[in-house]
Amino acid sequence: MQAELVTRSLGRAPARRPASPAGHRAASAVARRPQVVIIGAGFAGLNAALGLAGAPVDVTVIDSRNHHLFQPLLYQVATAGLSPAQIAMPIRRVLARQKNATVLMETAQAIDPATRTVTTCTRTLGYDYLVVATGARHAYFGHDEWERHAPGLKTIADATDIRARILTAFEKAEVARTAEERMRYLTFVVIGGGPTGVEMAGAIAELARKALVNDFRTIDPSTARIVLVEAGPRILPAFAEPLSRAARRQLEGLGVEVMTGVAVTDCRQDGVTLAGGTVIGSHCVMWGAGVMASPAAAWLGARADRAGRVVVEADLSLPGHPDLFVIGDTAHVPDGKGGQVPGVAPAAKQMGRHVARAIAARLAGRPAPAFRYRDFGALSTIGRKAAVADFGRLRLTGFPAWLMWGLVHLWFLVGFRNRVIVFLDWAWAYATFERGARLITGR
Amino acid sequence: MQAELVTRSLGRAPARRPASPAGHRAASAVARRPQVVIIGAGFAGLNAALGLAGAPVDVTVIDSRNHHLFQPLLYQVATAGLSPAQIAMPIRRVLARQKNATVLMETAQAIDPATRTVTTCTRTLGYDYLVVATGARHAYFGHDEWERHAPGLKTIADATDIRARILTAFEKAEVARTAEERMRYLTFVVIGGGPTGVEMAGAIAELARKALVNDFRTIDPSTARIVLVEAGPRILPAFAEPLSRAARRQLEGLGVEVMTGVAVTDCRQDGVTLAGGTVIGSHCVMWGAGVMASPAAAWLGARADRAGRVVVEADLSLPGHPDLFVIGDTAHVPDGKGGQVPGVAPAAKQMGRHVARAIAARLAGRPAPAFRYRDFGALSTIGRKAAVADFGRLRLTGFPAWLMWGLVHLWFLVGFRNRVIVFLDWAWAYATFERGARLITGR
Repeated sequence: MQAELVTRSLGRAPARRPASPAGHRAASAVARRPQVVIIGAGFAGLNAALGLAGAPVDVTVIDSRNHHLFQPLLYQVATAGLSPAQIAMPIRRVLARQKNATVLMETAQAIDPATRTVTTCTRTLGYDYLVVATGARHAYFGHDEWERHAPGLKTIADATDIRARILTAFEKAEVARTAEERMRYLTFVVIGGGPTGVEMAGAIAELARKALVNDFRTIDPSTARIVLVEAGPRILPAFAEPLSRAARRQLEGLGVEVMTGVAVTDCRQDGVTLAGGTVIGSHCVMWGAGVMASPAAAWLGARADRAGRVVVEADLSLPGHPDLFVIGDTAHVPDGKGGQVPGVAPAAKQMGRHVARAIAARLAGRPAPAFRYRDFGALSTIGRKAAVADFGRLRLTGFPAWLMWGLVHLWFLVGFRNRVIVFLDWAWAYATFERGARLITGR
Repeated sequence: MQAELVTRSLGRAPARRPASPAGHRAASAVARRPQVVIIGAGFAGLNAALGLAGAPVDVTVIDSRNHHLFQPLLYQVATAGLSPAQIAMPIRRVLARQKNATVLMETAQAIDPATRTVTTCTRTLGYDYLVVATGARHAYFGHDEWERHAPGLKTIADATDIRARILTAFEKAEVARTAEERMRYLTFVVIGGGPTGVEMAGAIAELARKALVNDFRTIDPSTARIVLVEAGPRILPAFAEPLSRAARRQLEGLGVEVMTGVAVTDCRQDGVTLAGGTVIGSHCVMWGAGVMASPAAAWLGARADRAGRVVVEADLSLPGHPDLFVIGDTAHVPDGKGGQVPGVAPAAKQMGRHVARAIAARLAGRPAPAFRYRDFGALSTIGRKAAVADFGRLRLTGFPAWLMWGLVHLWFLVGFRNRVIVFLDWAWAYATFERGARLITGR
């Protein structure tokens, strides 16, 4: 999502009494209701919209994509386990029965807090309350040229691209003319030891050692080299230290080389260079090393932290703009324990629900409550029967953690149907070691 | 797939004793076995490979894609009913347990019948028997510039592109600024009244009238106009005339406008022009009006019919080249009743199996038998409980035809797992009228 901050007069719709964005069907009946505009339908924005289902407002959700994405399972699309449609739902399907909600598949081009308007390609919408939930993208710390060679994982297109890269690497290895070329195609480098990197490395290792193992004639896919490179002292730094160690042990059990305390100094088409000069030859490098918030701070002229996140008030509103909220990965929110609320799905959902309550309170003439983050713990999967779970006092590893991970993710998958189909796919994969979506697509 | 005919000396592999393409694992053990090279892993090529499972030969399957595609259900991907992975299987997965088969994901660049070699990007393969099964693409009868505005449906990328076009049209209609623009986005034109066109038109009608009906606020998707344009006198010309009429009735029952005897004279970004000058404004035009064989005739210097299909002998070999077979949609084969074997999946599968038998016969010193096409009848679906089935004496329409269509297609879907998942998806769609894969993807 791209936007620029413009100052423009209101155009068609006065700020206090904006035209209903719900269009001609709803226009006559509800034109006098307060207008809530939500930009972005990730976990934060979608939950804000759902939380306003019973409120006497008109909600307009703007997103440049037609679907809400269950990002925690995106790595399974990238590693051929699930199909895109299994972890994505049309936003308007989710909100179909919520009659006060309208969905526009458009890009927000400008926000003007002074006139309380949002401008898209086709219209200028007046708002009484604005919710900015535009998420984050991967960041290359000043090396944007690395993106071509080490793509990150945020969208379905990212995931199907990475899937094609991984599967193509095995195909190219099968027809490689030299041993050196073959090894380069059979080497996979994942940069960044957070949950995404750990999940990717584990899933590629399982793909190579299990799902593909009988399918080739020249190469032995199980000889593939999978390297996880983390610049910090340990992987999964958000977890307790013993769990980091357990995760590392489980990854190594799958045959992943885990390198910690090693920074990447260059990414090229044929490999990466590490601090110290070591070169790892690879035609398949993936990036999970960092994210940067969408540039909402620039659109809003607001103060941001180093990761680009907008610094917000206790109720998640923008300082000086009690009618404008910034939530999800775009917001910098203290967690009350000296740290910050992490950029994870449960936190985004809680912020979305909070904003819905805050708007309802304001409408009722009450002050908006302060946001309080409830930390339900952290889960990360590594592979078959391998995961770590950190619930503060309760820490799990191995099979119990993996089972819990599976149940939690199934539970939170939007839509009953997707839950059933994903469960069947997982059950099938568990029984057969196969992967259901080994497709190389694209032109 | 692109290729050019080159005459080149044999290079590494002598024609009579080619190096094993199976690579280092198999090289020592089976280097003396006859080499069969199959280009293309559609229904024809894949069934030729499978038919050679027990034969004392080495089989090399070359395809530029990694997956075999169940094309008869591709229209369901294009209309958001199924996910790509549900109708595609990795070729090497299908052949994983067939130890005499090797799969190369490469593009065949040249065939040289004189030296009996096939050249790809990475190697020159000698062959004792060559099977050319490179399929067909849609044809625009000298108007290739129409493809941009009226894409055809042959690959997964075609299907996800068309899916994005259809779903985006509804999204654009929702935010359209004028009634004229809205109507143009809500008008869908399908060119060609063969099975693909009929299936597409019916599926779009159901999508608009059922699956999307509650999801929009400004537009009413059920007002969408779906037009099926056929230049010939009736739709489904391969079916008996009463079934053509039944199909038309059923399509019209779904609200599809069926125009027969009307040629399209122009396709543009904003619509189509019909013979006589009528213009239909539409931003979503699809092409199902004709196919052209892949240019195998040019590669082989062989005689072709008007649709580019290579004219073959009774045993499907190329005249003058008993070791070179051309099968599937690339071959012109008389059906023994004065017509030709149609370009349908059952015919391609039969040709593939025939070639496997013909090669086995040759190896045993017997002459190859003549190919005999067994016509099991024709099926075409129109929508929910609507289809036509033509089995010669037995003709079905409506629910019985639809049920038979579903059972037959489930049965022939490659892979037990896909069958289960597709069945569940269909059952779910039947119960809820929903579509499981309403995704707009791509960059």
